[in-house]
Amino acid sequence: MYRTHTCGELRIEHINNTVTLSGWVQKMRNLGGMTFVDLRDRYGLTQLAFNMETNAALCEQARKLGREFVVKVEGTVQERSSKNPKMPTGDIEIKVEILSILNKSVTPPFTIEDETDGGDELRMKYRYLDLRRNPVRKNIELRHRMAQEVRRYLDAQKFIEIETPVLIKSTPEGARDFIVPSRMNANQFYALPQSPQVFKQLLMVAGYDRYFQIVKCFRDEDLRADRQPEFTQIDCEMAFVEQNDILDTFEGLARHLFKNILNVTLEDKFPRMAYDQAMTLYGNDKPDLRFDMKFVDLTDLAKQKDFVVFNQAEYIGGICAEGCAGYSRKELDAMTQFVQKPQIGAKGLIYVKYNEDGSIKSSVDKFYTEEDLMAWVELFKAKPGDLLLILPGERNKTLPQLSELRLEMGERLGLRDRKKFVPLWVVDFPLLEWDEDSQRFHAMHHPFTSPKTEDVPLMETDPGKVRANAYDLVINGVEIGGGSIRIFDEDLQKKMFDLLGFTPEEAQDQFGFLMNAFKYGAPPHGGVAFGFDRWVAMFAGIDSIRDVIAFPKNNSGRDVMIDSPSPVAQAQLDELFLKMVQPK
Amino acid sequence: MYRTHTCGELRIEHINNTVTLSGWVQKMRNLGGMTFVDLRDRYGLTQLAFNMETNAALCEQARKLGREFVVKVEGTVQERSSKNPKMPTGDIEIKVEILSILNKSVTPPFTIEDETDGGDELRMKYRYLDLRRNPVRKNIELRHRMAQEVRRYLDAQKFIEIETPVLIKSTPEGARDFIVPSRMNANQFYALPQSPQVFKQLLMVAGYDRYFQIVKCFRDEDLRADRQPEFTQIDCEMAFVEQNDILDTFEGLARHLFKNILNVTLEDKFPRMAYDQAMTLYGNDKPDLRFDMKFVDLTDLAKQKDFVVFNQAEYIGGICAEGCAGYSRKELDAMTQFVQKPQIGAKGLIYVKYNEDGSIKSSVDKFYTEEDLMAWVELFKAKPGDLLLILPGERNKTLPQLSELRLEMGERLGLRDRKKFVPLWVVDFPLLEWDEDSQRFHAMHHPFTSPKTEDVPLMETDPGKVRANAYDLVINGVEIGGGSIRIFDEDLQKKMFDLLGFTPEEAQDQFGFLMNAFKYGAPPHGGVAFGFDRWVAMFAGIDSIRDVIAFPKNNSGRDVMIDSPSPVAQAQLDELFLKMVQPK
Repeated sequence: MYRTHTCGELRIEHINNTVTLSGWVQKMRNLGGMTFVDLRDRYGLTQLAFNMETNAALCEQARKLGREFVVKVEGTVQERSSKNPKMPTGDIEIKVEILSILNKSVTPPFTIEDETDGGDELRMKYRYLDLRRNPVRKNIELRHRMAQEVRRYLDAQKFIEIETPVLIKSTPEGARDFIVPSRMNANQFYALPQSPQVFKQLLMVAGYDRYFQIVKCFRDEDLRADRQPEFTQIDCEMAFVEQNDILDTFEGLARHLFKNILNVTLEDKFPRMAYDQAMTLYGNDKPDLRFDMKFVDLTDLAKQKDFVVFNQAEYIGGICAEGCAGYSRKELDAMTQFVQKPQIGAKGLIYVKYNEDGSIKSSVDKFYTEEDLMAWVELFKAKPGDLLLILPGERNKTLPQLSELRLEMGERLGLRDRKKFVPLWVVDFPLLEWDEDSQRFHAMHHPFTSPKTEDVPLMETDPGKVRANAYDLVINGVEIGGGSIRIFDEDLQKKMFDLLGFTPEEAQDQFGFLMNAFKYGAPPHGGVAFGFDRWVAMFAGIDSIRDVIAFPKNNSGRDVMIDSPSPVAQAQLDELFLKMVQPK
Repeated sequence: MYRTHTCGELRIEHINNTVTLSGWVQKMRNLGGMTFVDLRDRYGLTQLAFNMETNAALCEQARKLGREFVVKVEGTVQERSSKNPKMPTGDIEIKVEILSILNKSVTPPFTIEDETDGGDELRMKYRYLDLRRNPVRKNIELRHRMAQEVRRYLDAQKFIEIETPVLIKSTPEGARDFIVPSRMNANQFYALPQSPQVFKQLLMVAGYDRYFQIVKCFRDEDLRADRQPEFTQIDCEMAFVEQNDILDTFEGLARHLFKNILNVTLEDKFPRMAYDQAMTLYGNDKPDLRFDMKFVDLTDLAKQKDFVVFNQAEYIGGICAEGCAGYSRKELDAMTQFVQKPQIGAKGLIYVKYNEDGSIKSSVDKFYTEEDLMAWVELFKAKPGDLLLILPGERNKTLPQLSELRLEMGERLGLRDRKKFVPLWVVDFPLLEWDEDSQRFHAMHHPFTSPKTEDVPLMETDPGKVRANAYDLVINGVEIGGGSIRIFDEDLQKKMFDLLGFTPEEAQDQFGFLMNAFKYGAPPHGGVAFGFDRWVAMFAGIDSIRDVIAFPKNNSGRDVMIDSPSPVAQAQLDELFLKMVQPK
């Protein structure tokens, strides 16, 4: 037997018990007369005590233990002379009688501590060692608990978890598919799913009513920071529902997770905001509502004087940064440089300081009188001590720039508290977006998303104006998930494919089985998918999804630990009727 | 709103309630004055009543409803005049006031009934319709409940579900991998996992102690009946355990599932049988213990006379079929033909009838006296009325032949009751098996399986004799799962790779990251994997795993519903640095 207890379990009431523990050597301290070893497992640390006076041989053995050795000890629980109130097991230690080394360890390439000296690459390569560190382990445990709670909630709501296939069919819509050559079907290929979208819709046609799955999805995209080629979705679909039924059900899921995992009680009804409004007020379809700082449209008011920058701008908007009128020249320059960064791309930044003493100082004093600027201040509802920050330009470009500025100011003012959670449903997304490259419409969500009933006539006359029954759940400015009511009418689906530029043949070839299924009594249905990695990262209070994935890949899609992808034998390719082409 | 209740919910206490239901038209019966429609959803059937006298227009509308139309009705719950005690909703019906057709349906290609007129191929092609049928739906619901209970049990036992990657590395050991070309790493490939074996061992090295995952695995094999290229495992691993700890833990899982899903209480300690004994007594490493009928070794006793067939046989064994002495010539011929089938391959079958009157009649009367045969009868502990069935030949071939015969007789005698469940741990499997083709040893379980400590010296002298710490859970003759204690010592692992004919370079290339991980303090560990599809099929009382998978593939690995695999555009292959080769 390797253990009677774990290393996190023993307390003062176990004193005098004979116990067996196994684990890793976290630390060895040779104090001359006494030697102490911290033994670690997943559950905690327990101090082992070796006494040179009473058992010199054993104590000598303990002194030779290296970091990360795996050992088994038998001994007696005794009260510590100097207790450690920071450790759950800090009241006790084990007076060791037998020590067995189960396995040795060479010196790890980085320290197995909460703050390690290992860099990213090294920790990825030795991921099995990185996973031993408390912060990483806690993330993995959190992920497990969240998955359990997701299932508990959805099961109680009569959702059925149904596994959909991983070897499916390549479709040209959306991102690039990973493909899998078939050996038994020469020159044919499976694709890995970007999502189980079609299958969950087929399950609705099949009458399953409430489906979910926590499921791996795959995208062969050029990896930006914090994208993974394989990622995990909480994928859900419901039949005989309208948009509100879906929002209510998944508000429930969010509330359940916040309550049961973080012990945070969210408000009873999440606010809902139309996409247009989110863009107008926050320049962002996933606004961070932990703080207000709404955009104020200054276009009309500011265009009354001879300031050419403003007069040529399609849109002039700004935010009011409370209490920032005292910003120094240097601070204002920093903000200007911030908005001028290439990834933001503003030309410059205009400020108006509404000083505590009621005076006004701005970067456009040359063009506007104090009265002019006082009218601005009033429009912004600014108080003395506040700072207005203003950007002019094309509306579509300026809104996102101003959004970045707003988020940066929120950050600087400490308004983006990681312990505070503000959920929001963004609704009424556009059905289509125009793609300049291909000169055609793309589905903003996906080609099965239903237009709002009242907007269907616009599909003929002004497709860009059609709003969809689509929604995103946004928490603290992070898109946690999104979904839509689906088209369940065959004719409307055909019209949609037509708008997206599919010929009837292409539509039939790619989605024929779905359209065919719709002939046999498709119910009204809709669903949602949540980015599970992202949600776990939010609950863990960290930014990168990589830290909540046990074995993540790096930015080139490589698993540096197992060294994959890797070459395969030509014989293996022969069986698959494939030949490699050397890259140029 | 589409519904206030489901179609399985309304009872006598709902009478006079105004309700809204949605679902599919199961059946329409036009009785002249009255028209009845059975409305179906996942939860049940509810009868809708339309009265020609009180609302002729509505009744006319109802009469036009086709099978599988999707409708919404509003109406009042009323007591039925003729109740149907077979239906949970059989006491009531809905007096319909409003009928809306949500979607029409063309006539389905087969009937949506418990017994359908659709053949296998048709039902696969229209799987979304097949999934509407009660027996299929019940399997899918059962699968969901089983997955939930697996997670509930393992979570309570402190197991953590950890997702391991799907895009991994190809290894030559085991079955053929599916491979996935990498676009970002030219001429390199991922592989889909045949199991998360290495990752779960790395998780033990990482200190996670109790891991599980319900996970898709992949094998590119020529599909025999009832194999799927993608299948689902309950994959588990534990550290700081010995074989008994693992068997106890997963006996617990099995008991939990039997109790909570089937309400069957299994015995407290599953029997354990060594592989050798299972082969000797049942000719099978997964014996069906619902019935006894052990093999009796007749070799010594039968070799005393001039019957050349026996005298040349390495092994002569038989079974005693109780109460079958009365078998006719025709029945005995049928049994002979059964064992002579090519997939069984026996030359012939010898019988000895121990008649009710105490007389003996056999197919070898020419060679053996009644006294000789009486000695056989005694060895078999046969009673008057029993029938001995005997096969001679090479031991390795005869044992499995006799096993097939035993199972067939068990079937004929009604001893393989689907409602009875007899679990068994088969233990002490051989570590290695000799492969004639490659003239080398293969790992019987996998290359990480630990030999029994007492057999380690045999690795040098007689590797074929080494027993492994490996075990299978067998229920009713079906292998539900299996596993092993793993090697956690780097040197022993090297020795194992050596025995398997890996050069140190090959071992390093394929499993270097695992052996490297073992340098950093690997704990003793072991695990098990259960075939989830198979287990669900057993609980569903069916033979084919295809019936418990929502979207299965056919025997050519094709999904005939979505028509996959399928060709891809050359442009897609160009990006992957691949060219197709035409099959010859």
